[in-house]
Amino acid sequence: MVFITRRERFNAAHKLYNPDWSAEKNLEVFGKCSNPNWHGHNYELFVTVKGEPDKVTGFVINLKSLSKIVQEKVIDKLDHRNINMDVDFMKDKMPSTEVLAIEIWHQIADDIRTAGAFLHSIKLSETENNFVEYFGN
Amino acid sequence: MVFITRRERFNAAHKLYNPDWSAEKNLEVFGKCSNPNWHGHNYELFVTVKGEPDKVTGFVINLKSLSKIVQEKVIDKLDHRNINMDVDFMKDKMPSTEVLAIEIWHQIADDIRTAGAFLHSIKLSETENNFVEYFGN
Amino acid sequence: MVFITRRERFNAAHKLYNPDWSAEKNLEVFGKCSNPNWHGHNYELFVTVKGEPDKVTGFVINLKSLSKIVQEKVIDKLDHRNINMDVDFMKDKMPSTEVLAIEIWHQIADDIRTAGAFLHSIKLSETENNFVEYFGN
Amino acid sequence: MVFITRRERFNAAHKLYNPDWSAEKNLEVFGKCSNPNWHGHNYELFVTVKGEPDKVTGFVINLKSLSKIVQEKVIDKLDHRNINMDVDFMKDKMPSTEVLAIEIWHQIADDIRTAGAFLHSIKLSETENNFVEYFGN
Amino acid sequence: MVFITRRERFNAAHKLYNPDWSAEKNLEVFGKCSNPNWHGHNYELFVTVKGEPDKVTGFVINLKSLSKIVQEKVIDKLDHRNINMDVDFMKDKMPSTEVLAIEIWHQIADDIRTAGAFLHSIKLSETENNFVEYFGN
Amino acid sequence: MVFITRRERFNAAHKLYNPDWSAEKNLEVFGKCSNPNWHGHNYELFVTVKGEPDKVTGFVINLKSLSKIVQEKVIDKLDHRNINMDVDFMKDKMPSTEVLAIEIWHQIADDIRTAGAFLHSIKLSETENNFVEYFGN
Repeated sequence: MVFITRRERFNAAHKLYNPDWSAEKNLEVFGKCSNPNWHGHNYELFVTVKGEPDKVTGFVINLKSLSKIVQEKVIDKLDHRNINMDVDFMKDKMPSTEVLAIEIWHQIADDIRTAGAFLHSIKLSETENNFVEYFGN
Repeated sequence: MVFITRRERFNAAHKLYNPDWSAEKNLEVFGKCSNPNWHGHNYELFVTVKGEPDKVTGFVINLKSLSKIVQEKVIDKLDHRNINMDVDFMKDKMPSTEVLAIEIWHQIADDIRTAGAFLHSIKLSETENNFVEYFGN
Repeated sequence: MVFITRRERFNAAHKLYNPDWSAEKNLEVFGKCSNPNWHGHNYELFVTVKGEPDKVTGFVINLKSLSKIVQEKVIDKLDHRNINMDVDFMKDKMPSTEVLAIEIWHQIADDIRTAGAFLHSIKLSETENNFVEYFGN
Repeated sequence: MVFITRRERFNAAHKLYNPDWSAEKNLEVFGKCSNPNWHGHNYELFVTVKGEPDKVTGFVINLKSLSKIVQEKVIDKLDHRNINMDVDFMKDKMPSTEVLAIEIWHQIADDIRTAGAFLHSIKLSETENNFVEYFGN
Repeated sequence: MVFITRRERFNAAHKLYNPDWSAEKNLEVFGKCSNPNWHGHNYELFVTVKGEPDKVTGFVINLKSLSKIVQEKVIDKLDHRNINMDVDFMKDKMPSTEVLAIEIWHQIADDIRTAGAFLHSIKLSETENNFVEYFGN
Repeated sequence: MVFITRRERFNAAHKLYNPDWSAEKNLEVFGKCSNPNWHGHNYELFVTVKGEPDKVTGFVINLKSLSKIVQEKVIDKLDHRNINMDVDFMKDKMPSTEVLAIEIWHQIADDIRTAGAFLHSIKLSETENNFVEYFGN
């Protein structure tokens, strides 16, 4: 079993804000991330896939195929977008790094299986000082 | 003459959009950066100051003083903000990396001179693939 | 289960030196790290915590809380200090990266549990070419 | 149990090319990597070893010993070489990152055990956007 | 005047070898870089352009235009290629980082002027430990 | 004229402390850097040399020669040392990054001229957030 990771990037706006709370409560819990007019990040996404290398190609998965799946199902929907407003799979969800990583998993796990490998983990970095990892359960 | 550089960071939302143009024209010129609902970046700011090192301290400028100036005049206004909507010194200006770097220069040049050194350059990085430098004229 | 990692940094001096050995034996085992007058590093610390994201906030742990724990129990004691001489929890211990990572674990594991999550790993990087990971046993 | 990782680097040429296939088939599967006149990379290799820290030295393994093993068995054979043509342990093998990581494991696992620790993983990075990990089975 | 820099990358094979010299002389001067079967690098190219920001767009140059020029005139010719054998503008030239940087300048300087800005510098990084800069004369 | 840069690294201890001042005054001016028991850094040194590329080799300077000069005159004296106590060329000098960069310049400028090129700049990075540049006057 070998694990192969592809890095992709997207730049997006978001805010962490619970509309059922007062502005004060939002500020207390989410700090500057609750600023009503949004802020944004250069996200780095690391998609790790596992499998046996193919006897002939030496590939667990062709990185062109993996990159195409991630591009179409994730990057095209998130890049230069507002995560709260523009992204179908984040509708009515809190756009924390944790929740975003879980939802990205669900966007691509089946397609990667169809391509002959297994999704192992999603690592999503929001700043140079914090990142999240999700392993599917 | 020695040059000393301090790195600071801020995360902000923006869009590049000319309200006098159609959405089509904006898309043609600014591409995905014109998305109406904003996107964002982890900006890296490098402030370079020059001067003679002090005979006693060995400092061109005390980095605590430099960091305080940059924090109060730049980072506090930009971090976790919307550059188009929230930032006084960017009002009615196009928030391209070029224009933002020039305006950051004007926010801190005088204070650095008062602190006994000279602002040499502003370097502002928007993504890992592009950055801007401004030397004051 | 989601894993979230916070990076913190500290700059410290240390030496690897066994007082029961001759200078020659110390040099043979520890090389340049045994220099009697100390040397130092920019350490990078990655604290990984695991748990279920909160239904409302989307957080495994509020990063402000995590950062505060790490700051008070680890960074304030190590930053700009001499690990052999100044750090209570390293007293009479060899300040190898391995031992330091283990002791950092013990400084924060309970507080993180009190904050509602579980410490998963300590990763401690001494230079760009070597780092250590500890998972609690 | 503590895990310690040493980073080493090598610069090498390779191509991904199956001589049983037409040039068209090679291009379809391997893309630009099949260019007949080779291309190359700055590879980054992360060797992770696990064990109990020694009571006296605080070391899982002396990094000088680990570095010497990796240098002699891996770097000296790969650095500034052509992986397809010059490297004994890659003879008649497809030089994908996956296969190369597996073969590097086999070059050093026994020597690391002799040195008193256990090889845990090989991580091999080909570009800033893709890397492979192998855990020995 | 503002300076804007675009980073591009290419992976290529090369060797440093003077056919008028013996293998011994080549080894003495060029070291491992003279290995007859090639080696390779992940090159990083930083193209810096200068000009006045446009009053309306805030751009010195549209980065899409700059990226297109660099892609067509430089990256498409170098990426996944052998610099000694495959690259028209390096024919009969020594593929040192210095010479390659100079020749890249000549590939794009005119096109950038046509696009309304001025090429300021080429920075070309061969490994994490060495890079070259060229300013046009 | 082409500029070529070599990166080297050293890990050292130091403190910023003026023995003519009280501990309070030292703390006020130098902050945590005045801690009496030292602290340390992973310094990164970038030595930039300029000249015309040689017609035959394509080199401004052979990087092996440059690296040897920097190793012998700078790194061997600083690496795994205490800058205040162990380094001849820093005796009785304040080990700020500014002063250290200037003194490193004087250690190598003549040898680089003897090797046929000109020292252009010393860039010395103390942490990921601050660095100094010196151009010789």
